[in-house]
Amino acid sequence: MRAHLVYAHPEPKSFCAAMKDTAVTALAEAGHEVTISDLYAERFNPVASGADFVMRRDPRYLSYALEQRRAIEWDTLAPDITREVERVLAADLLFLVFPVFWFSMPAILKGWVDRVFLSGMFYGGRRFYGRGHLVGRRAGIVASMGAREHMFGLKAIHGEIEPMFRHLTRGTLGYVGYNVLEPFWAFHVPYISDEERRRDLDRLRQHLAKLDSLPVLPVPDLSGYDAQCRILFAGDMREP
Amino acid sequence: MRAHLVYAHPEPKSFCAAMKDTAVTALAEAGHEVTISDLYAERFNPVASGADFVMRRDPRYLSYALEQRRAIEWDTLAPDITREVERVLAADLLFLVFPVFWFSMPAILKGWVDRVFLSGMFYGGRRFYGRGHLVGRRAGIVASMGAREHMFGLKAIHGEIEPMFRHLTRGTLGYVGYNVLEPFWAFHVPYISDEERRRDLDRLRQHLAKLDSLPVLPVPDLSGYDAQCRILFAGDMREP
Repeated sequence: MRAHLVYAHPEPKSFCAAMKDTAVTALAEAGHEVTISDLYAERFNPVASGADFVMRRDPRYLSYALEQRRAIEWDTLAPDITREVERVLAADLLFLVFPVFWFSMPAILKGWVDRVFLSGMFYGGRRFYGRGHLVGRRAGIVASMGAREHMFGLKAIHGEIEPMFRHLTRGTLGYVGYNVLEPFWAFHVPYISDEERRRDLDRLRQHLAKLDSLPVLPVPDLSGYDAQCRILFAGDMREP
Repeated sequence: MRAHLVYAHPEPKSFCAAMKDTAVTALAEAGHEVTISDLYAERFNPVASGADFVMRRDPRYLSYALEQRRAIEWDTLAPDITREVERVLAADLLFLVFPVFWFSMPAILKGWVDRVFLSGMFYGGRRFYGRGHLVGRRAGIVASMGAREHMFGLKAIHGEIEPMFRHLTRGTLGYVGYNVLEPFWAFHVPYISDEERRRDLDRLRQHLAKLDSLPVLPVPDLSGYDAQCRILFAGDMREP
């Protein structure tokens, strides 16, 4: 299997960098071919704009998704986008490795999604969720955060963790068709001991060693919806 | 009252730009003083990095939140951050105006949050949610999206809309203490008629005219939690 990691942390000596290195090693040891996009090191530009297209279908009015669709046809995407798209399409497994900023990805990684998950290729029309372009592939999240584990839960201060990150798991990775693996979270990272951090890296190794048995978050199977995505019958969730 | 709009769309003739203009006019007509950050026009840099601090407490290892706290003390924040912080602190009302990208903000706006909502000022230690720095102020979302309204709901294809955007409403605006107003959503924007878009702008005017009667999303009152944010008693939600 080919695994691609998209990693975004501004500090090369951070715990998040150690998670990235641990993941690269663990996946390689499991026999996967591993590639990586190191967004800070590569100074990735996260701002979606008209400059993302070498030639524009309409230079007077920017409809970003329409330009994406035309640029795929014409092969006129900016080179940095083309490079990232090829990396993603070559991989059976995608991992996003990042520090949680505001219950989501750092902007540099959010912009990687904005610019790389192309309309007309990754999704489009009725091709999303269970019919997204990446159906059959798997995606995972490996993330560190300041919050403690007990801060998540039904009555806990942040509420349940799944809805807090649903925009990313279901709304982004699931939307383009990935089977979304149960995320790996390292909690309270800035406040714990080195010993505890080493245990988190061990836990990450174990997590990556059992990819085939990890729970997968369900995404909707589109069969329960009509052409306008109205409910036809009680929404089935895809069992991968 | 002072209202500050943070607006992020790459196309100045877009419907989202029209929502921004409509909001500016409606808020001014209601007697508010209105300021605006136009992130694309100002070429705002959304990437949090060590360059955000004119002087570093530790130039060898970047702990972003610790650098933020020190930079507040030393007054060594990068000038673009200082300018945005001042704009936010001067305003009783904050509105984020944006096109939904992946059930969240475009990266340029996500990075505005990452860099401007400073640790040690907007939040820190036990000062978040009902004790965040901006308690008593109100924040709203004015956003356009491609999805149809009927795609959201308990059995609908995207599930309920509140959890899909919870990272932003509760996890970001609520986290720093804002009373988060019920969001204004313009649905299915690229596919509807100009007449329908005009109706959406009318609906936005009405929305902004009744700010005082809009529902407010509840955020946790910290009184139900101990010093480590463990649950002491069934979590109260703050009633603003």
